[in-house]
Amino acid sequence: MLHLLQPTPPSWVQAAAAEVDTLLADHAHCELKAAQSALSLVARFGSEHPLLVEPLTALAREETQHFRLVYERIQARGGDVGVPARDDYVRALRSAARQDAEHPLLDRLLICALIEARSCERFKVLSEGLPDKTLADFYRGLMAAEARHFTLFAGLAEGVFGAGARARLATLARREAAVARHLPLGPTVHG
Amino acid sequence: MLHLLQPTPPSWVQAAAAEVDTLLADHAHCELKAAQSALSLVARFGSEHPLLVEPLTALAREETQHFRLVYERIQARGGDVGVPARDDYVRALRSAARQDAEHPLLDRLLICALIEARSCERFKVLSEGLPDKTLADFYRGLMAAEARHFTLFAGLAEGVFGAGARARLATLARREAAVARHLPLGPTVHG
Repeated sequence: MLHLLQPTPPSWVQAAAAEVDTLLADHAHCELKAAQSALSLVARFGSEHPLLVEPLTALAREETQHFRLVYERIQARGGDVGVPARDDYVRALRSAARQDAEHPLLDRLLICALIEARSCERFKVLSEGLPDKTLADFYRGLMAAEARHFTLFAGLAEGVFGAGARARLATLARREAAVARHLPLGPTVHG
Repeated sequence: MLHLLQPTPPSWVQAAAAEVDTLLADHAHCELKAAQSALSLVARFGSEHPLLVEPLTALAREETQHFRLVYERIQARGGDVGVPARDDYVRALRSAARQDAEHPLLDRLLICALIEARSCERFKVLSEGLPDKTLADFYRGLMAAEARHFTLFAGLAEGVFGAGARARLATLARREAAVARHLPLGPTVHG
């Protein structure tokens, strides 16, 4: 699914279902980070690569809107957004990419693509496994957006760097699988 | 105007009019930074102060939309967004606030308020002094948004910290005036 070589074990959804408040708070911060990351790509690379500007600012607005949707669910449960936790998955993925990075932008786009792919897969697992059917439907709705964002980032990488982006995506997908294999399976989007 | 104690000298608009491409690129990055700053306030303080969350995420979306409006003008002129320059005004303002800061959030909100106020004043000067009437009208339109954002940040500061926020705003406004007095008057929003 979307270049992911390591499926999430079924036991993860039990960890998530047992601590839905923690999952939602972590998810809310993932959406905020995704919006900030898209804006930061525009600020840093928009001058040299104008084709990034329009889609990534649109993405930032969409991710901010998704944050608000998640936050509504948090409020409805009487919770709060919590403080942002370190995302060991994302850190490990970035660190693994640095081993042989040639183009900082290429790797940033492809890592964003893989994070979106993994989020999509996780949302699919949640949509199929959460006992709370309303929440399961919520994740089914967001799943399609994450798949679309994967395609956006992979497409931008190919638009800027040509067909070579695909080989790099395959390399990084292997790294992503190695990182995912050792995730602790906690109640977080990437944990 | 909006607690600003040091009016921008009329000569600034000449510097801006002489280098409109530089002004627009700097302005575009100001909008991006404003969006990122609003999201970062939500991430850091939204848990303890939920009343920040809705207005600041709405603001982030609006600032991103303003970035797109500025970027359209840049593209229409055949320019590009450039790389983000250091904003000495904002750095000096933050540094001046640190002298006697008691509440990091209070000062962050009030500094955002003052930056919006200064941007509003600058956009007014541009709307009255730019020879390009289309661009002057563009800045007249954005001026009202900046005034509204000043009110938003000042109101959030008072909402969280009570009437004491006003005294701190007065102190920071004096600092802001001292910083503004020594700005180099270049073709940037705050320069």
